Amino acid sequence: MKRYERFAEQIAELIRSGVLAPGERVPSVRHASRTYGVSPSTVFQAYYLLEDRGLIGARARSGYFVREHARRPLHEPQIGPRTAQTTDVDVSDLVFSVLGSIKDPHTVPFGSAFPSPHLFPLPRLARSMAQALRGLSPHTVVADMTAGNPDLRRQIALRYMVSGVRLELEELVISNGALEALNLCLQTVTAPGDLVAIEAPAFYATLQVLERLKLKAVEIPVHPREGIDLDTLADSLQRLPIKACWFMSGLQNPLGATMSEEKKRALYELLHRHQVPLIEDDVYAELHYGPTPPKPVKSFDRDGLVMHCGSFSKSLAPGYRVGWVAGGRYAERIQRLKLMTTLSPSVPAQAAIADYLQHGGYDRHLRRLRYALEDQQGSMLASAARHFPEGTRVTRPTGGYFLWFEFPAQVDSLQLFQLALAQGISLAPGPIFSATRRFQNCARLNHGYPWDEQSERAMEILGRILATF
Amino acid sequence: MKRYERFAEQIAELIRSGVLAPGERVPSVRHASRTYGVSPSTVFQAYYLLEDRGLIGARARSGYFVREHARRPLHEPQIGPRTAQTTDVDVSDLVFSVLGSIKDPHTVPFGSAFPSPHLFPLPRLARSMAQALRGLSPHTVVADMTAGNPDLRRQIALRYMVSGVRLELEELVISNGALEALNLCLQTVTAPGDLVAIEAPAFYATLQVLERLKLKAVEIPVHPREGIDLDTLADSLQRLPIKACWFMSGLQNPLGATMSEEKKRALYELLHRHQVPLIEDDVYAELHYGPTPPKPVKSFDRDGLVMHCGSFSKSLAPGYRVGWVAGGRYAERIQRLKLMTTLSPSVPAQAAIADYLQHGGYDRHLRRLRYALEDQQGSMLASAARHFPEGTRVTRPTGGYFLWFEFPAQVDSLQLFQLALAQGISLAPGPIFSATRRFQNCARLNHGYPWDEQSERAMEILGRILATF
Repeated sequence: MKRYERFAEQIAELIRSGVLAPGERVPSVRHASRTYGVSPSTVFQAYYLLEDRGLIGARARSGYFVREHARRPLHEPQIGPRTAQTTDVDVSDLVFSVLGSIKDPHTVPFGSAFPSPHLFPLPRLARSMAQALRGLSPHTVVADMTAGNPDLRRQIALRYMVSGVRLELEELVISNGALEALNLCLQTVTAPGDLVAIEAPAFYATLQVLERLKLKAVEIPVHPREGIDLDTLADSLQRLPIKACWFMSGLQNPLGATMSEEKKRALYELLHRHQVPLIEDDVYAELHYGPTPPKPVKSFDRDGLVMHCGSFSKSLAPGYRVGWVAGGRYAERIQRLKLMTTLSPSVPAQAAIADYLQHGGYDRHLRRLRYALEDQQGSMLASAARHFPEGTRVTRPTGGYFLWFEFPAQVDSLQLFQLALAQGISLAPGPIFSATRRFQNCARLNHGYPWDEQSERAMEILGRILATF
Repeated sequence: MKRYERFAEQIAELIRSGVLAPGERVPSVRHASRTYGVSPSTVFQAYYLLEDRGLIGARARSGYFVREHARRPLHEPQIGPRTAQTTDVDVSDLVFSVLGSIKDPHTVPFGSAFPSPHLFPLPRLARSMAQALRGLSPHTVVADMTAGNPDLRRQIALRYMVSGVRLELEELVISNGALEALNLCLQTVTAPGDLVAIEAPAFYATLQVLERLKLKAVEIPVHPREGIDLDTLADSLQRLPIKACWFMSGLQNPLGATMSEEKKRALYELLHRHQVPLIEDDVYAELHYGPTPPKPVKSFDRDGLVMHCGSFSKSLAPGYRVGWVAGGRYAERIQRLKLMTTLSPSVPAQAAIADYLQHGGYDRHLRRLRYALEDQQGSMLASAARHFPEGTRVTRPTGGYFLWFEFPAQVDSLQLFQLALAQGISLAPGPIFSATRRFQNCARLNHGYPWDEQSERAMEILGRILATF
């Protein structure tokens, strides 16, 4: 990271933490240069960058100011009751009916699970694909099916190393996206009827997978900023024969919470005491806005208890369907299960991503992607403050492309979903994130698409619908 | 098909059926031209083609003769006891230890499950991939994940139509190879503990999948030429609460049996009476040596009882991992299950194959592939006749790249496997094809690789090991 980028990050941090409030003047170039001991040109470059990211704006003859979107007029959602709920899962039909209804490409995609595909370097990936296919021997095409592309495996292991996780190469199982990895992990450590601790709210696919495998959910409440409630979890582990935990320790979907390192370590120690394996779903790992990637729980893993699942679908190559799991002590069983179900992810897709990771400029792309997502988050937050009713609460994650809104208690988000859809706007209603159909007055909105007039109008329409409840 | 190809096919049929015996002289050009009412140049072209396919050879000044490999010195294997066996399945460890041991690229790959990757048009596919990626809009990359590539779906439906199967486009679910399709089908129509009728011998992955899903196998004997024993099946359906059948009606793995059309119809009517769904595993459909593709059982399906699974892995694009199922009345449930487990096969791989099917010359490639496989089959048969002990029996499938050998009763094929592997030769021992570990004196050998001196030497070594039992 260059000096001006580092300096820009310092200022961004001040804005994020609220030290520099919306509308406030950013230190002048001369002042900043003196205070922080950097050259004026470094300050200039940093301010340009921050302007580019939508965090500050220039006013004629007055210097730079923190932009409105960086303020936080809406409060954080409240954490639910701090008790674990155990339940059968039966939410799939609801999820499919919601997902099925948002396919129309003319719908404003606030309900989508993916960021805009225009944010990804698809032409560059296509070149990597061509390059990779030229280098792929016919023998490799068959051989790579069982073991996975060796270059890809090395590249992934390398990224773990850089972010402070030591990994045995043998631990890595390449999968058809993270979703397959998560399925395989869960099947490896559970049998039908078993209890699995999940988050509340949880990613809806988690609920669907539990339902499919006839597993029972123990819902552990999640704090919108600090993540899983460890006390409730500890209590549940004490009382119940929980066979596995499926948690997102970073940028939790849908809340966006990221647990602190300290808390992650405590979570690991708790699970270690009970010898309950953790399936760590970390598919948004690369989408942190800050400069340093948060360490996963996996980084504290001493004895292979954590299965850490990642993917390129949200950060590089949607549709390529390449994910992985660092499977710890379960890796071989996971690998065998994969050989019996899908055999292998597409070999060309693996090879293309391996080539891109080596030559494509992944980190440069990621920086641009993060800037865009943070900028769009600001726009959606500002727009919500303008249009949504009094009493609306919202998260403000430090990464990713989801906001979680808690509307006033009388709002029925399934109804909201239907009314909005009739106006050509999709959203993800709260109840699809819960095995017990909670979060009725909540919704997840996607800001992964470039913000434009249509987005602004859509927020206005949502605001008007919300006012009718 | 051109006139000379049609004529060549007539002669090939005479050789296959034994009307023209090995060593026998093929009709002279003049004679053939007169008898069959075709021009001499057509006969010439046909004979060149047959020579190319290794079916006939020219002798100086004496014309063409049927080559030795086309004779059949070894008898057909005997069909097992005509009784169904019901059993738990526990064969996975054995299968993995066999598969794991044949990874070394220097091993003679008689144990491989794939034909030589050199037989596939990989460079042409790479061009289709480049073309497809240029045409792929970012929106499509995300949209195609749920529904599958629409061009690919149309092309697959078209091939069904050409081979006489009418299909609703909605029935088609694109999957990560046929293996995923088969898994999804089975999960859709069964629950743990259910009975599933399978073949004996059966493809070992079938056994692994049953084991994984905790299903019980009812093994129905397969005749090496005529396929599944319908009487035993009828009896089993009468007596037992069988929930599904998983059969290969064409080029059954490992025997290579292809049921007659009449028998397929009878099978369908039988299942229809009992309303038991059929999972029809038809991954070798394109590898028939004869000119006309055999119709699948699916072609008789009146009410969506048959789930017909296919793949490009064995005929075009190994490693791309693109298969499908025409799921009949179960299609929607299969599709939902897929959305919950792997979401989608790789979008670029789908697009590349769609482009190839439209512009790449699939039928031309298939013709060449079939010729090569038939030629290699002849070579392996001839070599077995030279080297394997008295009393060895062998199948002679009308397609594909597997031969099933039944050795004298005292041969232990697991031991044979170990001894051969020590000499750098792999093979697939009989017991991995049975839930009850039968077929101890049998083995499946792959002739999907170009026949060369190394192959010949390997057969000789196998023969010497066999003689020691």
